[in-house]
Amino acid sequence: MALVVVGGVAAGMSAAARARRLDPQLPIVVLEKGPAVSYGACGLPYLLEGRVREPADLIGHTPEYFRKERKIDVRTGARVTAISHPRREVVLESGERIKYERLVIATGARCDTSTIAGAGQPHVFTLHTLDDAERLRAFLRDREPRRAVVIGAGYIGVEVADALRRNGLRVTVLERGADVLLRDDAAFSAAVRNMLETHGVELRCGVKVETIEPDRVADVPCDLVIIAAGFKPNVELGLEAGVATGRTGAIAADDHMETNLRGVFVAGDCAETTHLVTGRPTWIPLGTTANKTGRVAGANAAGGRERFPGVVGTCIVGIFGTAFAATGLSVAQARAEGLTPVSARIEALSRPGYYEGVKTTVELVADRASGRLIGGSVIGEDGAAGRINVIAAALHTRMRVEDFERLDLAYSPPFSPVWDPLLIAAQQLVKQL
Amino acid sequence: MALVVVGGVAAGMSAAARARRLDPQLPIVVLEKGPAVSYGACGLPYLLEGRVREPADLIGHTPEYFRKERKIDVRTGARVTAISHPRREVVLESGERIKYERLVIATGARCDTSTIAGAGQPHVFTLHTLDDAERLRAFLRDREPRRAVVIGAGYIGVEVADALRRNGLRVTVLERGADVLLRDDAAFSAAVRNMLETHGVELRCGVKVETIEPDRVADVPCDLVIIAAGFKPNVELGLEAGVATGRTGAIAADDHMETNLRGVFVAGDCAETTHLVTGRPTWIPLGTTANKTGRVAGANAAGGRERFPGVVGTCIVGIFGTAFAATGLSVAQARAEGLTPVSARIEALSRPGYYEGVKTTVELVADRASGRLIGGSVIGEDGAAGRINVIAAALHTRMRVEDFERLDLAYSPPFSPVWDPLLIAAQQLVKQL
Repeated sequence: MALVVVGGVAAGMSAAARARRLDPQLPIVVLEKGPAVSYGACGLPYLLEGRVREPADLIGHTPEYFRKERKIDVRTGARVTAISHPRREVVLESGERIKYERLVIATGARCDTSTIAGAGQPHVFTLHTLDDAERLRAFLRDREPRRAVVIGAGYIGVEVADALRRNGLRVTVLERGADVLLRDDAAFSAAVRNMLETHGVELRCGVKVETIEPDRVADVPCDLVIIAAGFKPNVELGLEAGVATGRTGAIAADDHMETNLRGVFVAGDCAETTHLVTGRPTWIPLGTTANKTGRVAGANAAGGRERFPGVVGTCIVGIFGTAFAATGLSVAQARAEGLTPVSARIEALSRPGYYEGVKTTVELVADRASGRLIGGSVIGEDGAAGRINVIAAALHTRMRVEDFERLDLAYSPPFSPVWDPLLIAAQQLVKQL
Repeated sequence: MALVVVGGVAAGMSAAARARRLDPQLPIVVLEKGPAVSYGACGLPYLLEGRVREPADLIGHTPEYFRKERKIDVRTGARVTAISHPRREVVLESGERIKYERLVIATGARCDTSTIAGAGQPHVFTLHTLDDAERLRAFLRDREPRRAVVIGAGYIGVEVADALRRNGLRVTVLERGADVLLRDDAAFSAAVRNMLETHGVELRCGVKVETIEPDRVADVPCDLVIIAAGFKPNVELGLEAGVATGRTGAIAADDHMETNLRGVFVAGDCAETTHLVTGRPTWIPLGTTANKTGRVAGANAAGGRERFPGVVGTCIVGIFGTAFAATGLSVAQARAEGLTPVSARIEALSRPGYYEGVKTTVELVADRASGRLIGGSVIGEDGAAGRINVIAAALHTRMRVEDFERLDLAYSPPFSPVWDPLLIAAQQLVKQL
């Protein structure tokens, strides 16, 4: 009897490592379909850019390390084709069957290219695995493409556009929706557009790609295409085994990351979580949540009783050196949730002008009925990550704007102005409540 | 009848500006004993360093600006010698009397040099006002001192030591206590010592200076002395008028920044505030609190009803490019408050190793009885300000460590590792609860 973990990237390896720490004797098997485990998938754009030199730099630990040092039976190239929960066993492509007592499903997400005709051509790539990145790097080196189209203006899409542009390619990003970075926020999207265009990357929104021609996408000539859209949770294996998905389409779990099947846990990009601002299920597949849910699933699979309450939707992306960060709900998202949002967007210096402060944009969103902060965004070259995290912490505790305005934030000229941009935004927002 | 504000630096001008905004008609008089108002006193060390070129760069607005644009009657060189609350008037050194209906006391703090013999010599300075900085700059330029002693290892002391060292002087800092930066925390102090010594600044703790000789302090030869110790709130004017001080020795106020005298408000470095972690009165004179309390005092003096709940003691200082930041209570401070603290101190990378992460030290302190976070510190070159602010926000809401551990912080390789150092520290701390 053992703990079996299906998937060995962020969530799966976090689960296995945490289970091992809580139970030194528990037999643990990790089944990973790919050739590597425990790699930083979020670093792939930087491998493409060239900042990260070697794929090995993105690998946390090798399977050998886990086998020898952590006594975790990590098997790569091990594709699970079925889960039989009544028998408590998983079936591998090879036909091998492995018994489990507890199971962690960490099958991740994928870029679904099936809706796009021509996605199988040799100049069309996704960037989801280490393998994808290596093939793409080889293509860049050997074929020297000059004009790239990136399909999708989510995080990976803009990071890839940035990386390719820095390598001298002409880049056009095609986005199906009106907004970018998965945030229904026109001003935020306009700022991203402005940054991309300033650096020579073209962004076209409202373009739904159905076909990739050999030399063009839509009417954009190109010799390289990256599909960074159509992300879907890998739920099929779970569904066939009787694991329930939620309204987001990802696998549903309680706050112990346990699914509807007792003893079967879920973690990472295939799992639904709770949005702590709305209280509703959400699917926001991100590496940090994958690690956190993996840790909780692993602990509980090993007999612990840890909770993962949920997320507030914090995210950040660097575009040509400027951070675009958001958390909670945008005004439009809040309206869609039936709230009555009010917001304030300000520009201020990140530090005093006499200490090289640079322009920072902060928007805070509150719910008029409750006076609580429900979201925000920060854009800037200096200190944006720290600032969005303060907003995120406030969202976790359902802080009111009037309390946020009084936060005792660190002040010294090398780090911030005496009125931090966050507090200036809060002052403006309070006036509207 | 008017609002009179005594003191025109951070707190005083914040109060006046806020009162004006709430009441466009209110006669407002600001009485400042010095030659300038509205300057960034926290920038003085950088003026000394040379990073800030001109004193004018530190001045927010001139008296003329306030008079013309804000219709605030700002008078510089106007020293108030007495307040007669029964008559509702202040008396100036010139003999002039000015009537008030509401009064804001923003008299600030001073560096009390009276306990040190020889403090009046021409090579001995404090760095509290713009005037101080200009005299010191002239001394540096004209006398070309080579060996400096800085008395006091608080924030200003170490900032001045940094500034002088960068200008090529040999610098020794003498501190009366065992610790530096006003934090009873041996490891934090050791880190500061290490940073200072790495950059050639000598730090000697446990040295009480009673006399400054013409060519030495204690046994340290020097031709320049900066006194950055003995800070005291300027409460005498208030006390003589019947304004009560609190147990910290600063002027006591309710959470509307109103003193025991109705209609008399207090703000800035002369005011006591509430420490939100201990619930007790505290005196932590900092520019950001001066601005906040000034704003609240000004609003309420103009008929508003705003609250200033208190501080959590957040502070940050840059020493040779590395941030030393702290908030809430150290372990020793928590013990002194009768709590049972537990803590975890970790070192981790500020970003992934493959994205130029640098070493960051985080300590989190919790109260064992309640499981709540009660303090923390962050040391590092990258992202320390943002991280201490997340801890500060958590202190404001009395967050439990187990909730802190689940914070949905922003993750992307250019900004943080997948497990932020804050979360790693929280994981370690949870184990001890």
